[in-house]
Amino acid sequence: MLIVIEPNTDENKLAKLSELLIENNAEFKEVNFLNEKIFILFSSKKEELAEKVLKFGFVKKVLTIKSPFRLSSREFKAENSKIIVGGVVIGGSEPVIMSGPCSVESEEQIWEIAREVASKGADILRGGVYKPRTSPYSFQGFGVQAAKWLAEAGRYYKLPVVSEVMEISDITELYDYVDIFQIGARNMQNFKLLKELGKAEKPVLLKRGNSATLNEFLMSAEYILCEGNSNVILCERGIRTFVEYTRNTFDLNIIPTIKELSHLPIVIDASHATGRSELVKPVTLAGLTAGADGFIVEVHPRPSEAFSDGEQSLNFSEFSQLIEDWKLLKGPVLTIRNKKTAGKNLHA
Amino acid sequence: MLIVIEPNTDENKLAKLSELLIENNAEFKEVNFLNEKIFILFSSKKEELAEKVLKFGFVKKVLTIKSPFRLSSREFKAENSKIIVGGVVIGGSEPVIMSGPCSVESEEQIWEIAREVASKGADILRGGVYKPRTSPYSFQGFGVQAAKWLAEAGRYYKLPVVSEVMEISDITELYDYVDIFQIGARNMQNFKLLKELGKAEKPVLLKRGNSATLNEFLMSAEYILCEGNSNVILCERGIRTFVEYTRNTFDLNIIPTIKELSHLPIVIDASHATGRSELVKPVTLAGLTAGADGFIVEVHPRPSEAFSDGEQSLNFSEFSQLIEDWKLLKGPVLTIRNKKTAGKNLHA
Amino acid sequence: MLIVIEPNTDENKLAKLSELLIENNAEFKEVNFLNEKIFILFSSKKEELAEKVLKFGFVKKVLTIKSPFRLSSREFKAENSKIIVGGVVIGGSEPVIMSGPCSVESEEQIWEIAREVASKGADILRGGVYKPRTSPYSFQGFGVQAAKWLAEAGRYYKLPVVSEVMEISDITELYDYVDIFQIGARNMQNFKLLKELGKAEKPVLLKRGNSATLNEFLMSAEYILCEGNSNVILCERGIRTFVEYTRNTFDLNIIPTIKELSHLPIVIDASHATGRSELVKPVTLAGLTAGADGFIVEVHPRPSEAFSDGEQSLNFSEFSQLIEDWKLLKGPVLTIRNKKTAGKNLHA
Amino acid sequence: MLIVIEPNTDENKLAKLSELLIENNAEFKEVNFLNEKIFILFSSKKEELAEKVLKFGFVKKVLTIKSPFRLSSREFKAENSKIIVGGVVIGGSEPVIMSGPCSVESEEQIWEIAREVASKGADILRGGVYKPRTSPYSFQGFGVQAAKWLAEAGRYYKLPVVSEVMEISDITELYDYVDIFQIGARNMQNFKLLKELGKAEKPVLLKRGNSATLNEFLMSAEYILCEGNSNVILCERGIRTFVEYTRNTFDLNIIPTIKELSHLPIVIDASHATGRSELVKPVTLAGLTAGADGFIVEVHPRPSEAFSDGEQSLNFSEFSQLIEDWKLLKGPVLTIRNKKTAGKNLHA
Repeated sequence: MLIVIEPNTDENKLAKLSELLIENNAEFKEVNFLNEKIFILFSSKKEELAEKVLKFGFVKKVLTIKSPFRLSSREFKAENSKIIVGGVVIGGSEPVIMSGPCSVESEEQIWEIAREVASKGADILRGGVYKPRTSPYSFQGFGVQAAKWLAEAGRYYKLPVVSEVMEISDITELYDYVDIFQIGARNMQNFKLLKELGKAEKPVLLKRGNSATLNEFLMSAEYILCEGNSNVILCERGIRTFVEYTRNTFDLNIIPTIKELSHLPIVIDASHATGRSELVKPVTLAGLTAGADGFIVEVHPRPSEAFSDGEQSLNFSEFSQLIEDWKLLKGPVLTIRNKKTAGKNLHA
Repeated sequence: MLIVIEPNTDENKLAKLSELLIENNAEFKEVNFLNEKIFILFSSKKEELAEKVLKFGFVKKVLTIKSPFRLSSREFKAENSKIIVGGVVIGGSEPVIMSGPCSVESEEQIWEIAREVASKGADILRGGVYKPRTSPYSFQGFGVQAAKWLAEAGRYYKLPVVSEVMEISDITELYDYVDIFQIGARNMQNFKLLKELGKAEKPVLLKRGNSATLNEFLMSAEYILCEGNSNVILCERGIRTFVEYTRNTFDLNIIPTIKELSHLPIVIDASHATGRSELVKPVTLAGLTAGADGFIVEVHPRPSEAFSDGEQSLNFSEFSQLIEDWKLLKGPVLTIRNKKTAGKNLHA
Repeated sequence: MLIVIEPNTDENKLAKLSELLIENNAEFKEVNFLNEKIFILFSSKKEELAEKVLKFGFVKKVLTIKSPFRLSSREFKAENSKIIVGGVVIGGSEPVIMSGPCSVESEEQIWEIAREVASKGADILRGGVYKPRTSPYSFQGFGVQAAKWLAEAGRYYKLPVVSEVMEISDITELYDYVDIFQIGARNMQNFKLLKELGKAEKPVLLKRGNSATLNEFLMSAEYILCEGNSNVILCERGIRTFVEYTRNTFDLNIIPTIKELSHLPIVIDASHATGRSELVKPVTLAGLTAGADGFIVEVHPRPSEAFSDGEQSLNFSEFSQLIEDWKLLKGPVLTIRNKKTAGKNLHA
Repeated sequence: MLIVIEPNTDENKLAKLSELLIENNAEFKEVNFLNEKIFILFSSKKEELAEKVLKFGFVKKVLTIKSPFRLSSREFKAENSKIIVGGVVIGGSEPVIMSGPCSVESEEQIWEIAREVASKGADILRGGVYKPRTSPYSFQGFGVQAAKWLAEAGRYYKLPVVSEVMEISDITELYDYVDIFQIGARNMQNFKLLKELGKAEKPVLLKRGNSATLNEFLMSAEYILCEGNSNVILCERGIRTFVEYTRNTFDLNIIPTIKELSHLPIVIDASHATGRSELVKPVTLAGLTAGADGFIVEVHPRPSEAFSDGEQSLNFSEFSQLIEDWKLLKGPVLTIRNKKTAGKNLHA
């Protein structure tokens, strides 16, 4: 049960509500979410309190949400969430393009790539500075120094930047350089990190863990939302299956499913979802056709020399072709999406 | 190693070749494939025989294929295979539409559906008459009688028909009524059935098993091809993973991968790959965008009353919308495919 | 709903029951199972007929089974099924040892192996004569000739023999030579083959498909049982997962789960479940500890020369060690199983 | 390549080695591991330096390790690692018993459970105080307060205690109360946490992620080892597969595989690997038979009232039965393990 409070309600009045809930052994959490104060009751067994709660004049409404995720559900919020960062709208009428290298390898490299992707129409610049690597003996990223290069290149080319944080202390370290914090697949259930990002005043790009169920994925988003940060962008980047010919299996089905169950935008990362550069274009275009709100693509001027993920990075020419083909497809794809606003509306 | 023979070579000459191979302990198979006679050597260890073999004047060429599948590989045959049935081309310049009910439930039902899908532009009519069902207590299909209804409706509306065979004896029983034999996912490795269909003079629609690797999938096609039947249509219909919100996980990645490695056409079946009617349209359109040569979609006038697979069947209005949206998308999708014929060509 | 008929009931009386069921649109199947005649109603919606049915004096009892599998459920039959073949009891007080080569490669080979495994205490001799192989270019087995060698070696060493059938016509071909028909993992849902074996008067060893759920596995057993053949032995042989260091993932959990839900015996095949000979012993001993009714193990005098599955075959010395270690463990394992007959009884 | 240094080598001499490596562009890491100083070269391409390096008199030996994990490999260290904590030996001649509640729910609860498991022969007391939960609205553990209760109960009953840390700051908070730090499955690739625990002077129990490959699992151990902490205990707790009847699929195969490839001890957690209390005993006994160095089992006096994981917790009577049955089995299991010290030795 969610209890939505009238704006500008007095703290003393809220204290009365808290008292009532505590008396009734109802565990709850108070959150400021999208300009509203909301009390979230943890257990669905406490629905019987609705009547009592509604007697308080300052209670605007009481919502019962059937899904285990609440603030992230479409039951809670019917219209699509739009996340705005540096003038770019994610979850709006047009899919966004997020591009850049797997790792920021040098000042020159990130400037070279930023120039290229900006000129081709990218909206957001990505680049890893803390790299989670299976082996402790692999390149682990250049840290804050690289974040500075990334931020400067982004500022120059007017591209907001996204980079991954692996640990709570990374948030502070990267705060001044990064516009969107990324949670990598391996950290999707690093709950303390999620909570801390729930308190940060920047959007979060949450990648699906490679064996996360739909419920686990949206619940991890919920960890961020219920701390007050409504700006969560979901990302499908492939799951682990028995399949051996691609690094991961791109789960296309989750795109329309998320659009049905949640108001949060979802973007796709075909670089990780395939692990092979020659598959990035068809998979990206397919994901956009199925309703994705944007795509991430790893780009490198010379993929074979990349410090990490070279096999899945596009070179500049491949990136251009992807953008060109997407332009051919975009009109009809948007027409199909817009048509749907009449009637049952999976992409709503 | 494949040994391709000059046309019209005398049987006596071929006997000499056989002798040489036997003398050298080379196991092999003789196949008539696409108007050529080919000797396929089983073991790659016998490549040293190439020189001796080439001394025979009637040997046109000797091919070494690196992949374990041979006749189905693009190494063997660079250009896309086109399968023609009743005037419909599968694997040609335009994706084909295969539609119809999960099961043929009555004469009226199949005629009602055939009329509808024909009027909307379907190319091929599908309908199950032998139904492989998890439970022996579930509806198992109406057999030959239903095949007759299917064939008549198909003939009237000028739609070639496809239906599943589960057992060798089914081939004879359905021979007069069916234009394309389907192998269901559960029978993808029913090798004796595959061999028998390799001898049939009708195309085969081979569905991927729900946990089949790429190699296993193409090897099952190879079982059919190496008996002389070159008309195999592959079908991705979802794989089994940990994912719980859809019946199967649609493996989009396999579409461009197959186009790269094999000359055989591949179609998609989003009905089975999702198990939920509301996902069929976005997933179908995405699969076509990624390069599929056609799509299968289950249609039923009243899905909630279907004898099987009702949750994943489109009603007539949903089917119309799918076709309409595909028409919007088709132009750009074909433009993108055709562009690719210059240079590195995944969709070739 | 299962309707159990009193012994020696007149056919005319049964016709009355059939009429009643047909009048009430109840689909059903009549089966002779373990010396009883049983009418199985397909849909659980027809439970309301129970009262009417019980009015027939010749109806012994009416059973409502909650699980979708019926004759194979412990709800239907509380005590363990014992399958007796050539004096060997499967599902009895002692686990059985099934051993032999992957493929029968020659008369000498099968005699050499039969002698060895018999001398070490094997109960049943296995050997493939029809081999389902991923590639059409791999060794496919020596067929009936090999079955004769197998049968003769088995008879001499007093070991009943088990061999795989891939197709309905194989049943007739192997009938005189084989004591237990094996259904391989790839054919677990070859329903027409299952039905035909349901009519055969020999036990069936049913291997779990590599991505079969518990329900699918027991439903495939049900296909055999509901044709009247109660002698089904289940076999866990590993499932397909993301794991890459073994051929399959041995699903130990299914052993006690099957013992809880079904009365059918379950044996294990660690050769296929691991694909590596050095894992066969620990995995086999573990599976027996968890409650398995027996084990299959592939043995070859010179595994590196085997025509198939050499990497997972034990040599004679490894086989001896396995048997020796099992003898050390058997006493305590049986004590633990027997203790359990008091109280809640997973291994019952 | 690993460069092992003679004991008590002067820092100035080591500086010479560092210089040589830097001059040759060899990335490396210096670690104090088990009383030896070791230089680990990251890239295998630098093997050509071995000769030069060996010219330094203070270089004891140079090791080339083929597996990607190095300090955790059996190539590096042939004999089993024994981890000693509060008098308990993990990885020694006898498997250890780790038991306790999923969550420490109250002072009374942990004392009641500690008394019970101590009296039955448990070696180590487990109890969660920081609980990683899928939902932010689920019970998250009682934190430091609960850790104090746990520590006191453990001290009284002479049981070292193990509890999970989710975040770097948890290490300091729990340092005084916990004898073994647990890394949960969701944090197996929380690399910054792993590194920090590599610097802690307490053993670490590392649970396998639910979709971790063998390589990823041992690489996560390597993160801890290469910071100098050699006391890592691995734990198999089930993987995520398509299987639906148990919470996870227990991967028995990994036990003998780990024993072959690594010197680290591996324990099993059948509570999480099955999710169902009735499966805990057979699966635990099986895992011990296959070579596990110990087992974790969740115990609760009244499982149905547990704050978390009630369905998979044993009550006191079930725990007693498990221990009793393990005692019956232990003799033969240890005999089998000890026999193996002659010859090829999987369990060595």
